[in-house]
Amino acid sequence: MSGSTFGQLFQVSNFGESHGPAIGCVVDGCPPGLELSEADLQPDLDRRKPGRSRHVTQRRESDRVEILSGIYEGRTTGTPIALLIRNEDARSRDYSELAQTFRPGHADYTYWRKYGVRDPRGGGRSSARLTAPMVAAGAIAKKWLGRSYGTLVRGHLQQLGPIKVPFESWDEVDCNAFFAGSRACLPELEEYMDALRRDGDSCGAILRVVASGVPAGLGDPLYDRLDARIAYAMMGINAVKGVEIGAGFEAAAQLGSEHGDELTPEGFASNHAGGVLGGISSGQPIEVRIALKPTSSIRLPRRSVDLQHRPVTVSTEGRHDPCVGIRATPIAEAMLALVLIDQALLHRAQNADVAHALPPLPPGVA
Amino acid sequence: MSGSTFGQLFQVSNFGESHGPAIGCVVDGCPPGLELSEADLQPDLDRRKPGRSRHVTQRRESDRVEILSGIYEGRTTGTPIALLIRNEDARSRDYSELAQTFRPGHADYTYWRKYGVRDPRGGGRSSARLTAPMVAAGAIAKKWLGRSYGTLVRGHLQQLGPIKVPFESWDEVDCNAFFAGSRACLPELEEYMDALRRDGDSCGAILRVVASGVPAGLGDPLYDRLDARIAYAMMGINAVKGVEIGAGFEAAAQLGSEHGDELTPEGFASNHAGGVLGGISSGQPIEVRIALKPTSSIRLPRRSVDLQHRPVTVSTEGRHDPCVGIRATPIAEAMLALVLIDQALLHRAQNADVAHALPPLPPGVA
Amino acid sequence: MSGSTFGQLFQVSNFGESHGPAIGCVVDGCPPGLELSEADLQPDLDRRKPGRSRHVTQRRESDRVEILSGIYEGRTTGTPIALLIRNEDARSRDYSELAQTFRPGHADYTYWRKYGVRDPRGGGRSSARLTAPMVAAGAIAKKWLGRSYGTLVRGHLQQLGPIKVPFESWDEVDCNAFFAGSRACLPELEEYMDALRRDGDSCGAILRVVASGVPAGLGDPLYDRLDARIAYAMMGINAVKGVEIGAGFEAAAQLGSEHGDELTPEGFASNHAGGVLGGISSGQPIEVRIALKPTSSIRLPRRSVDLQHRPVTVSTEGRHDPCVGIRATPIAEAMLALVLIDQALLHRAQNADVAHALPPLPPGVA
Amino acid sequence: MSGSTFGQLFQVSNFGESHGPAIGCVVDGCPPGLELSEADLQPDLDRRKPGRSRHVTQRRESDRVEILSGIYEGRTTGTPIALLIRNEDARSRDYSELAQTFRPGHADYTYWRKYGVRDPRGGGRSSARLTAPMVAAGAIAKKWLGRSYGTLVRGHLQQLGPIKVPFESWDEVDCNAFFAGSRACLPELEEYMDALRRDGDSCGAILRVVASGVPAGLGDPLYDRLDARIAYAMMGINAVKGVEIGAGFEAAAQLGSEHGDELTPEGFASNHAGGVLGGISSGQPIEVRIALKPTSSIRLPRRSVDLQHRPVTVSTEGRHDPCVGIRATPIAEAMLALVLIDQALLHRAQNADVAHALPPLPPGVA
Repeated sequence: MSGSTFGQLFQVSNFGESHGPAIGCVVDGCPPGLELSEADLQPDLDRRKPGRSRHVTQRRESDRVEILSGIYEGRTTGTPIALLIRNEDARSRDYSELAQTFRPGHADYTYWRKYGVRDPRGGGRSSARLTAPMVAAGAIAKKWLGRSYGTLVRGHLQQLGPIKVPFESWDEVDCNAFFAGSRACLPELEEYMDALRRDGDSCGAILRVVASGVPAGLGDPLYDRLDARIAYAMMGINAVKGVEIGAGFEAAAQLGSEHGDELTPEGFASNHAGGVLGGISSGQPIEVRIALKPTSSIRLPRRSVDLQHRPVTVSTEGRHDPCVGIRATPIAEAMLALVLIDQALLHRAQNADVAHALPPLPPGVA
Repeated sequence: MSGSTFGQLFQVSNFGESHGPAIGCVVDGCPPGLELSEADLQPDLDRRKPGRSRHVTQRRESDRVEILSGIYEGRTTGTPIALLIRNEDARSRDYSELAQTFRPGHADYTYWRKYGVRDPRGGGRSSARLTAPMVAAGAIAKKWLGRSYGTLVRGHLQQLGPIKVPFESWDEVDCNAFFAGSRACLPELEEYMDALRRDGDSCGAILRVVASGVPAGLGDPLYDRLDARIAYAMMGINAVKGVEIGAGFEAAAQLGSEHGDELTPEGFASNHAGGVLGGISSGQPIEVRIALKPTSSIRLPRRSVDLQHRPVTVSTEGRHDPCVGIRATPIAEAMLALVLIDQALLHRAQNADVAHALPPLPPGVA
Repeated sequence: MSGSTFGQLFQVSNFGESHGPAIGCVVDGCPPGLELSEADLQPDLDRRKPGRSRHVTQRRESDRVEILSGIYEGRTTGTPIALLIRNEDARSRDYSELAQTFRPGHADYTYWRKYGVRDPRGGGRSSARLTAPMVAAGAIAKKWLGRSYGTLVRGHLQQLGPIKVPFESWDEVDCNAFFAGSRACLPELEEYMDALRRDGDSCGAILRVVASGVPAGLGDPLYDRLDARIAYAMMGINAVKGVEIGAGFEAAAQLGSEHGDELTPEGFASNHAGGVLGGISSGQPIEVRIALKPTSSIRLPRRSVDLQHRPVTVSTEGRHDPCVGIRATPIAEAMLALVLIDQALLHRAQNADVAHALPPLPPGVA
Repeated sequence: MSGSTFGQLFQVSNFGESHGPAIGCVVDGCPPGLELSEADLQPDLDRRKPGRSRHVTQRRESDRVEILSGIYEGRTTGTPIALLIRNEDARSRDYSELAQTFRPGHADYTYWRKYGVRDPRGGGRSSARLTAPMVAAGAIAKKWLGRSYGTLVRGHLQQLGPIKVPFESWDEVDCNAFFAGSRACLPELEEYMDALRRDGDSCGAILRVVASGVPAGLGDPLYDRLDARIAYAMMGINAVKGVEIGAGFEAAAQLGSEHGDELTPEGFASNHAGGVLGGISSGQPIEVRIALKPTSSIRLPRRSVDLQHRPVTVSTEGRHDPCVGIRATPIAEAMLALVLIDQALLHRAQNADVAHALPPLPPGVA
């Protein structure tokens, strides 16, 4: 399978460049009969789109999505759903000089080595802009999962640069452009970002994404485990350098008697597993954490080389997110939703006939 | 694609259960003309196999692999290579009672929910034993990568339970059953493990895996990124709960001016990226860290439920690794090698005609 | 993999409905550096498009293709190439009544059973219109194959209804709207089609497609054989009911001493194999024949049932091809080209290192 | 996906060579809970195995299959089912000289061009022996389809060389080694084969395969159509040169008013479609016809070249089927069953929620 397609049964084929005519995707394999219109996709696109605050790129894109196929009389027909988003604010002039050099930490160099050519306009294919179609496709997945199982996929910011962000409630997350779960920390975040922007530097972030209402049984024992699929999906997002499920790296120092989540008739007594046991969902919430690296396009001058490998100094002007992590929450939610719908379809393909005398254990402690 | 197959062009289809007649895999897509015999696969199998020290399971398996196909006159023919390992020391009596309950932290419960049935003998398909065929397949990948590019894939233990293990040299790693890169810490590790075993408890671990000599250009920009494939491969190993590439979670608190690896005519000045930029290898060493959770099968009594969801206490006797992380180094190396060969084949499929006036930058600082 | 994606490395994801806003596809995996613009795609689209003669549907579509991505400065970049064709002449009113009944021989009934819903406007997804994106994608494949190996993929009409059409030259094929290889038979074909149209009936056709300049070695021994991929591609075209490679069904009555193509230093002495031996290309021209059924949408009244399975009589007005075979030649060429580029990439992925002391045998007798 | 794996959800990875230690396959994705043992697989293996009459190869193989995994207490567990068949009667001496030349019509030449190496012992991977694992895997598919839908997949010989074989009943088919549906023609077939063997020549054949009890709705509209998958599966069998669904090539000369199967409340009035409309099953029997070429390994001397492309004369001794079509019936049945189970699983993955007020139309006239 070629690299720009995600998923096995609910399959998303992404296309586009930052400054080409359009970006979008083809979603194949969606179950038929789902009520769907552009209005279902726009809210998540709006949550991701640039220009929501001064702390993100000031590129002006409405990110209006057009559904080109797969819908009849307001419902999915089971045939491919093509989604199109026109690029509106492409300024190629900002980037022309970059074609001769490689930004440290950027895909510039590796694209050039791989393909012998790269589209330097706005980062071309490596732009975070290409996550918009993921978000649109993810919104379809979220809707179907919600209707089918009551699944809810939500994320929030856990750390911005060095600042840890406490989580108080999902309501708070929706009330600020940082996807921060606490109102109190907002002034500190804003101050940090303002300083960063003044300095012409960038920072990384850590996000947490949680899916509740996930049915037990999704995933496979080996290789194509649910957690492996999630790790793949998350690390497939630009700038992600680390993924944890449940206790994650903390699990290394835990004892077995501490880590293994006890089962009771009322459900699991803890969720160190993050909702996945042996590669298969347990019915507990799926708990994922991801780390995003700082943006590589910064104003501060840095050493690099040019196409002839001669030393140069690179300083990147133009419009860039000083922290891509700020806008990444809807992206991570979307990717998790895409994994879950795919695994839900795969699971029922093989196991639709499995019957149980008992309903699943309740999720228990989150 | 069904769940037990790994890879797209270099494809490994794994089969078997802990106490069934045999385990193994079919490796399809191997380039022809590679010298190969069982002797190439056995050393890594021996590094992984049980019984190498008192700190791992005492199950007695020779893990002798038989090549059933795909070789003619000592060379690969390009057709599928089937690998067979007979199970020799299967003691079903140890596990019969477990069929009625679910070990906390174990796949017992999720298999039952998914399939309505599970093979309880020795953990069935969820046993770490199923990593042996991965290791055998990985040895083929290692050999081809080494011959083709000089690639070297190596790993070592970075943390055992709470104990951090310094890395001094690769030579040290080969000299002890812990895959520890330092001789000095061995007594502490042994003491810790002895206490753990006495207590009937288990612990987790952190490993580092490094691939040097990886050509630039492997991977895809989006979704099917090299780092995404690596994360998938690593999280596809039993017990892994976290994956980092390069700086990993540390990247969150780094500034862009610190994280982005500068380029010089002599190569990269640092390797926070871990050898992957924009989803594509840069020619620097691939740096991966993984966290493994503690084994779920422990002697200490724990709360659980039975098949009727009634409360029970579970204490697991039998032969188990108190720390699966100890034997996981060759497994993680194998999975990384499997990703790299697959991506190398994918890369040349698309880009075999790409020519560059200049050779790649040297890797620079590791 | 979901059903609307063709190919493994050169992957085409098709979308659209006959009377939706647009049709198109995403082509992923194209090698970088290929000169490409809309002008390369339009000629084949024009060969396929409706309205070229009175013998095909009179729907008016310019079939102008827009390239949305994957091209920079006139060359492919190696990233997905999205192709968009707007539907211009959609008349939904022609089809509204059809939604209540099923045309005999049409996908109406099976779509309804599969999805519980169908888009009845112009046949929705089952319309022959959806072959336009195949043709556009195929034009990319043709160009790359031609540049890389001198491959030439061409087809012509061999039979229209009961009329056998002799083949005199490829030049003739290009000079008429039937893709007939003989000028002399044109009056008979036109007369036959005029009568058919008057009667409100339709007919089938047989096409031959030939690819010359195909390198030896493409394909796999088992399952994913080159001929299997070709059969899959051809039978994936609307209305195709039969596929032959080389001697095809005639091979049944041939003796081994007659069928097996002898090899000489000057090349093969015959081509009963149609260019494929043991699932792998021999370097001889690939010879394919396909049979297309008559169009199911005809004016003549026929028995059917309605959504409640009550008997009805169906007579289909609207604009339909009385013989879809007439326009199918560029489609079949495109699908064959898509198979060949995919197999060429797959082949070099695995076998790029294979060296031979001798060049391949010349193709010999075509 | 590499070439030796068949299927998307019910996935069969085939391995082995004619004279290697063993042949077999890994079946991944089988639904759990199916009663299964070797006894379910052996009957079809016995129908295919060599030595059933003097008209097929006299190689002596018991074709005993061993199930290595995926079964617990007599039922499938949902994990991979590995099947192993040891080669018992491998006589390498018969084939040693062949390594220097290429049999006309054989894979000898193309393997050599593709891989640079080939296993000449008994045809290596290109041997018809490799269809045994297909037959074993197909037996699992048949059993599941029969239990789930009452599907019955059966085939018979329609033509042997130039002799057309009438079909009288399925009972007759089971009573002779030709899979002929008529007792009366057996003497003619035997006489023909005896003469062929005396002459050292070979012949082709045509088979018909029918699947009844196939639920409506299997398949996809475009590319991955049910008929495309069937064509792929059939052309993936050694020696197959042509595939027809329903009316096949006859459809070309049919009028639309004749070909389109009318629908009545009692079912379809005819089955020219062969059970597939618009790429999706209609609930009518699936009707497939395939043509097999004559065996290429014959005693009659033929012109060829050696590894240096010098002219030679080749005459093939050893044990070969003079007509591979005779033993191909269970193989074609198996491949059709493999397609159907795969499509059934894919269908319910996407469309499990589709509800209809009415049951499907009865199949009507076969």
